[in-house]
Amino acid sequence: MKNKMTNHEKYMTEAIKQAKKAYALGEVPIGCVIVYRDRIIGRGYNRRNTDKNTLAHAEITAIRKASKIIGDWRLEECTLYVTLEPCQMCAGAIVQARIPQVVMGTMNPKAGCGGSILNILEMPQFNHQVEVTRGVLEEKCSSMLKEFFKELRERNRMEKLWKRAQNESAEAATQEEKAKLVPIDKTESNTVY
Amino acid sequence: MKNKMTNHEKYMTEAIKQAKKAYALGEVPIGCVIVYRDRIIGRGYNRRNTDKNTLAHAEITAIRKASKIIGDWRLEECTLYVTLEPCQMCAGAIVQARIPQVVMGTMNPKAGCGGSILNILEMPQFNHQVEVTRGVLEEKCSSMLKEFFKELRERNRMEKLWKRAQNESAEAATQEEKAKLVPIDKTESNTVY
Repeated sequence: MKNKMTNHEKYMTEAIKQAKKAYALGEVPIGCVIVYRDRIIGRGYNRRNTDKNTLAHAEITAIRKASKIIGDWRLEECTLYVTLEPCQMCAGAIVQARIPQVVMGTMNPKAGCGGSILNILEMPQFNHQVEVTRGVLEEKCSSMLKEFFKELRERNRMEKLWKRAQNESAEAATQEEKAKLVPIDKTESNTVY
Repeated sequence: MKNKMTNHEKYMTEAIKQAKKAYALGEVPIGCVIVYRDRIIGRGYNRRNTDKNTLAHAEITAIRKASKIIGDWRLEECTLYVTLEPCQMCAGAIVQARIPQVVMGTMNPKAGCGGSILNILEMPQFNHQVEVTRGVLEEKCSSMLKEFFKELRERNRMEKLWKRAQNESAEAATQEEKAKLVPIDKTESNTVY
């Protein structure tokens, strides 16, 4: 069949579902799933602002959950699917958890540590190296992020305009108030002092 | 006063206290504290095997606790004290949490990412750089680790000897049993078949 999804695409679709949960919260849409013997054993999505916690990245949450299921800190037979190239913390956690395989959606050229700024996942100096597949459902993962940041910029622009309008009307009101107050003050000073 | 502790030494002593808790559990003794305005707001020690969780490193636990106290994922006015140079995951978490200052005890030349294998803490490519102080109470932090690994090697050696002794006595018992069984088998085969 022409349009049959590969296994990688199937699980990346699940990671995208997780990312959409982040989107709905107004968080940068990043999602992750961890698969063990063809079964998802850990899911996560970015909740950094919502939880007010640096550790609430998609990958960290998924690793925590998968470790609970496996009952070990080593996730040695697992594959991690993530919509965006991991940051330095998450790439580090993947190596620490000895995850053998990582599948990424889109790259993060400004901060990614799975090949962009650094390649923590494949460093021969560490005691574990990951097999990495890049660009699975890349367009979907990337357009979701672009859409999010476009909306965010628009929201920020509107907020700025709204604040400026508020300041201007507050200033106009103050001017008006001042104009009213001057004769009153004068009257008062004329009458009282 | 000649022996008065510096502030760094005072808080590193607290991090060592945490490391000793790990030691008591048979875990690699690594401890961490996070200080905000001269007050400890996060403590952590290595519990990786105990909790069966990759995320149970000293620094990650301390960051999680400090974030809860501060109510933000940014720990922008904090100093993190850790007895051993952080791994790739913990160094990444420190940068992600925007911690401005890290004080280390001893280095980890085989796997450390605060200057040994990598220097994730001070990379100009990331959006945050950490001010790093190395070698505070280095001897104490280092000798605690050496002692732990010496004991571990001794324990492993004893276990190996114990297992070998068990195998040998089991083998001897089997030989003895076999010697007894041979005439019985012969008798049986003579009588039954």
